[in-house]
Amino acid sequence: MTPLNLKLSEARTLVDKLFDDELKIPEGREKRVIEAMRYSAIGSGKAFRPFLVLTVAKMLDVPQEQAARVAVALEMVHTYSLIHDDLPAMDNDTLRRGKPTNHVQFDEATAILTGDALLTQAFEVLANEKTHPDATVRIKLIEALSKAAGTRGMIGGQMMDLLGEKEPLTLKEVERMQSMKTGALLEFACTAPAILIGASDEIMQALKAYAHAMGLMFQITDDILDVEGDSATVGKTLGKDSKAHKSTFVSLLGLEEARQLARDLGMEAKAALKIFDDKADMLNHTTSFILSRNK
Amino acid sequence: MTPLNLKLSEARTLVDKLFDDELKIPEGREKRVIEAMRYSAIGSGKAFRPFLVLTVAKMLDVPQEQAARVAVALEMVHTYSLIHDDLPAMDNDTLRRGKPTNHVQFDEATAILTGDALLTQAFEVLANEKTHPDATVRIKLIEALSKAAGTRGMIGGQMMDLLGEKEPLTLKEVERMQSMKTGALLEFACTAPAILIGASDEIMQALKAYAHAMGLMFQITDDILDVEGDSATVGKTLGKDSKAHKSTFVSLLGLEEARQLARDLGMEAKAALKIFDDKADMLNHTTSFILSRNK
Repeated sequence: MTPLNLKLSEARTLVDKLFDDELKIPEGREKRVIEAMRYSAIGSGKAFRPFLVLTVAKMLDVPQEQAARVAVALEMVHTYSLIHDDLPAMDNDTLRRGKPTNHVQFDEATAILTGDALLTQAFEVLANEKTHPDATVRIKLIEALSKAAGTRGMIGGQMMDLLGEKEPLTLKEVERMQSMKTGALLEFACTAPAILIGASDEIMQALKAYAHAMGLMFQITDDILDVEGDSATVGKTLGKDSKAHKSTFVSLLGLEEARQLARDLGMEAKAALKIFDDKADMLNHTTSFILSRNK
Repeated sequence: MTPLNLKLSEARTLVDKLFDDELKIPEGREKRVIEAMRYSAIGSGKAFRPFLVLTVAKMLDVPQEQAARVAVALEMVHTYSLIHDDLPAMDNDTLRRGKPTNHVQFDEATAILTGDALLTQAFEVLANEKTHPDATVRIKLIEALSKAAGTRGMIGGQMMDLLGEKEPLTLKEVERMQSMKTGALLEFACTAPAILIGASDEIMQALKAYAHAMGLMFQITDDILDVEGDSATVGKTLGKDSKAHKSTFVSLLGLEEARQLARDLGMEAKAALKIFDDKADMLNHTTSFILSRNK
């Protein structure tokens, strides 16, 4: 196991423990929706966003328990977005994180409610005083997450993405769409620990710059994997974008130029972290890892 | 116009103005989702929940601007739930608030995102300092709303309701299902103003008791309307429950006994408000109105 895979696996374990606490199965018939939440949230997925939260938190000396709760809230939002994106009316996908998508395993109605419930509970987790003793800090986290997940962030990006299937997006629009659709939550992952300790503007800006470059780079490698990857290794259906005639970095730039752009963004991501010196080793390692990922 | 209809209409106007402020249409292609949010949120519907928030707020001398923001957040959650409930995979409904449902007017994918966006933005509205200067109060509102809207409240109730189509619910289960599905948000409507001013436990308990009785009564009259009402007057498809073989108060108790139960709950609702004396006139008037409603 590489140091990064070990850290990802540690993040997965830590977050799963908290998921298990937060998602207790009740007595009544409504338990079906909690079972469906657990099915999609626990034990599967790379836990890349929780890993980012925990890694930045460690770099900034944020208490791990606080960071873990933020990581769980964020992973709830990410998981809800996957469940809804996979629905027949959206991407109509049957495979996610190496197993049947939520609506295939349960049914469409349950999958819609499951996504709604995860989104709702994410805010409950952040609002709880266990996340941070100061209510002002919790409010800042809630404001940041609702903005990142809303129409100016993830949902707006997903809307643009869906419309892009009908009318192609320009490179500028693809960049904007991706920085909303996936970039906004990645920025939250990297900046939430700074919110937890009330870090300086300089630190906040550095983390934002890192998140922006790393997020775009992550997306470009995702686009490359969609063309070149192996479905069994990646754990989701591939080749979807070209099938849906979606504009992607690869379709607009070609494979070689897309790879070069990813490398440039990797340099940018590393430059952004200079102020943290060798405390940023794990984040820099992450950048290199994303550039070479095959899943 | 009756005094109550006037108040409902005033609540509608006030909330619509705030919706208009909160839901500004952006430049980019993602504007489609904001247009769809506006379509379902603005100008249609009885605004019963906002009316409740504003009426309790007036009774407790809560500043109207604070109450209005809570009312908007709550109406966002209520509207999202209607949009998702109307989807083909759920109730598959085409008429809502006298016009085509969101997925009919736009499309299913947009309707899913529209609901998600309204839910997300509700928490952003509550988190904003305009809602209350004290972050602790805003956190309490967010905790209360996320609980009311989540698996122990609205979503759990909706899950039970869906499962009830396959296997009939008992009267006790119907009562529990309804107190979760619609009662939890009505309780939030009645208690949020008390949270805004940090009211005493006695006031909080009285408002909870009122909300509980009124909520069940509201649901029973809804069940009666589903059997006896006029679709054009009510503004939504009727006769759905018996068509879906759903267990309701009417199917389990019969029309006469259901009407009697509604009257008993009406008495209970009025008794709960005794401590507010004639300040509760409008809420008592509301109870009488619900008992005699035809839409």
